[in-house]
Amino acid sequence: MYAITIPEPGGPEALVWAEVPDPEPGEGEVLIEVATSAVNRADIMQRQGFYDPPPGASPYPGLECSGRIAELGPGVSGWAVGDEVCALLSGGGYAEKVAVPAGQLLPVPAGLEVRQAAALPEVTCTVWSNVFMIAHLRPGETFLVHGGSSGIGTMAIQLAKAVGARVAVTAGTQEKLDYCAGLGADILINYREQDFVEEIKRATDGAGADVILDNMGAKYLDRNVQALAVNGRLAIIGMQGGVKGELNIGLLLGKRGAISATSLRARPLGEKATIVAAVREHVWPLIEGGHVRPVVDRELPMSEAAQAHQVLEESGHVGKVLLVTE
Amino acid sequence: MYAITIPEPGGPEALVWAEVPDPEPGEGEVLIEVATSAVNRADIMQRQGFYDPPPGASPYPGLECSGRIAELGPGVSGWAVGDEVCALLSGGGYAEKVAVPAGQLLPVPAGLEVRQAAALPEVTCTVWSNVFMIAHLRPGETFLVHGGSSGIGTMAIQLAKAVGARVAVTAGTQEKLDYCAGLGADILINYREQDFVEEIKRATDGAGADVILDNMGAKYLDRNVQALAVNGRLAIIGMQGGVKGELNIGLLLGKRGAISATSLRARPLGEKATIVAAVREHVWPLIEGGHVRPVVDRELPMSEAAQAHQVLEESGHVGKVLLVTE
Repeated sequence: MYAITIPEPGGPEALVWAEVPDPEPGEGEVLIEVATSAVNRADIMQRQGFYDPPPGASPYPGLECSGRIAELGPGVSGWAVGDEVCALLSGGGYAEKVAVPAGQLLPVPAGLEVRQAAALPEVTCTVWSNVFMIAHLRPGETFLVHGGSSGIGTMAIQLAKAVGARVAVTAGTQEKLDYCAGLGADILINYREQDFVEEIKRATDGAGADVILDNMGAKYLDRNVQALAVNGRLAIIGMQGGVKGELNIGLLLGKRGAISATSLRARPLGEKATIVAAVREHVWPLIEGGHVRPVVDRELPMSEAAQAHQVLEESGHVGKVLLVTE
Repeated sequence: MYAITIPEPGGPEALVWAEVPDPEPGEGEVLIEVATSAVNRADIMQRQGFYDPPPGASPYPGLECSGRIAELGPGVSGWAVGDEVCALLSGGGYAEKVAVPAGQLLPVPAGLEVRQAAALPEVTCTVWSNVFMIAHLRPGETFLVHGGSSGIGTMAIQLAKAVGARVAVTAGTQEKLDYCAGLGADILINYREQDFVEEIKRATDGAGADVILDNMGAKYLDRNVQALAVNGRLAIIGMQGGVKGELNIGLLLGKRGAISATSLRARPLGEKATIVAAVREHVWPLIEGGHVRPVVDRELPMSEAAQAHQVLEESGHVGKVLLVTE
């Protein structure tokens, strides 16, 4: 098969479409004939040499895909060759075939095409596990998501609205904010022109956000704690603004606040399967009922993954950038 | 009645035993004739002028007491005049009488004297709410409590052991560590001579602590995150080592860790009542069954509260320092 390989870490040009051996499904795994993969920030870090795949994972980038099951490994039940699926991967999505533990498979939701479904696994699993399973966002609470127009952001807005929360977003352009508003966002904050702490307080009578989903890490740490409401929960899933930041424990304690920081890729199989099962139970019906939809910025041929990485690095996109094999 | 007043903030001598008006129980409150109160670090901060009582609270220090119900305010049911009780207070325990919302009352556990029961409300509510309701310590997990010989520490060790956790403690002398061992602590760390990160890793095959209960705040923040296991939870309840510290978000994220910071005093009545009810349900049977006991360092007359504060400030105590009225 062909896959995107990374002979040497570097810029987008480091991604090379090359012939490689086919993967084989191990015990409890299925082999997927990949229709589509999607780009995540972690892929860029992997390309740059800053994020090695976890032990046992495919060396090729790609944390999600959609396609058809081509082969069942030993001990797999509940799935059949030919099933249309999407999957959460620990790597290897940028390829014509990938092997994945059956616990990380999801059916293509009714009403979606196979190729679109690759936009779902990472954002639904990340948002559901962080915002709902860890931070327990509840109806009537205020939810702030940074980068509201990103893949994560566009899914987070829709899921938070679907459970009855009030949604605030930050983004860098009016166009992106307008898009977020179209998805249901109630409070729109242009981070280039406005202070999100002031804006979230203004919009909540000084109370702040009950849950914040953050991809900036250190750069926003202090302001995120400032923006939290009493009993507020900050869920950090990225460090685009740095790794080490000053935490005002006194402020956090005064609010009885909590901070979590997670990544999906490094979780053991059992935890991934638990999250995937929860997403299938809680999120899939919302998609199939038409309340939540994948937001796709564009589709590019997988062999042109370099161009897709450039799009993400320039932050010119809204939603997910897909890589199509066929 | 008489109460400990603070005419001017300052050292222990700022505490003055003086005649003051009797409190009156409001709607949903009872009046307790106080037998015993107990000293908490927050009382010292209040004495120093750094911790004003929350709005509506008594101006006198004292966050817990035991005694007998002297009067029921309007709308109180389930309690009767003469009942022997202990109570979580938002202030006013250093007095001959105190009014308290009925939701913060607990019966004196069977087998304990009234005077001893004042050692229980703050430590049981703080440990249960943080270690179990927030950090969800589970059987088989490793639990680290800093200041293992403090009032909080001695209760935390016993409760963690009672649920089947493995318990590590830090303390500053061998004598204190020996006392912790007598309460069931498995891993003893002298923080003056040993690095707790190294020691906890050594004792857990490198895994770290699943839950840490911390009273040091900034000074220990980075090392606490280092000492956490994967999926570990750090519960901060004090800032004896400072308010602002550097948080290594990358390290926290790699462990999928969580940090909470809380205080009990500022919680609204409903949250306090929820915690008190959980303590009555889960902790009281352990005390009445003889599995967990209050650890009392000494009893002093309430009028000599200054001396009790000195004991706490010099950290010469093990367990709770009680103030007795009668």
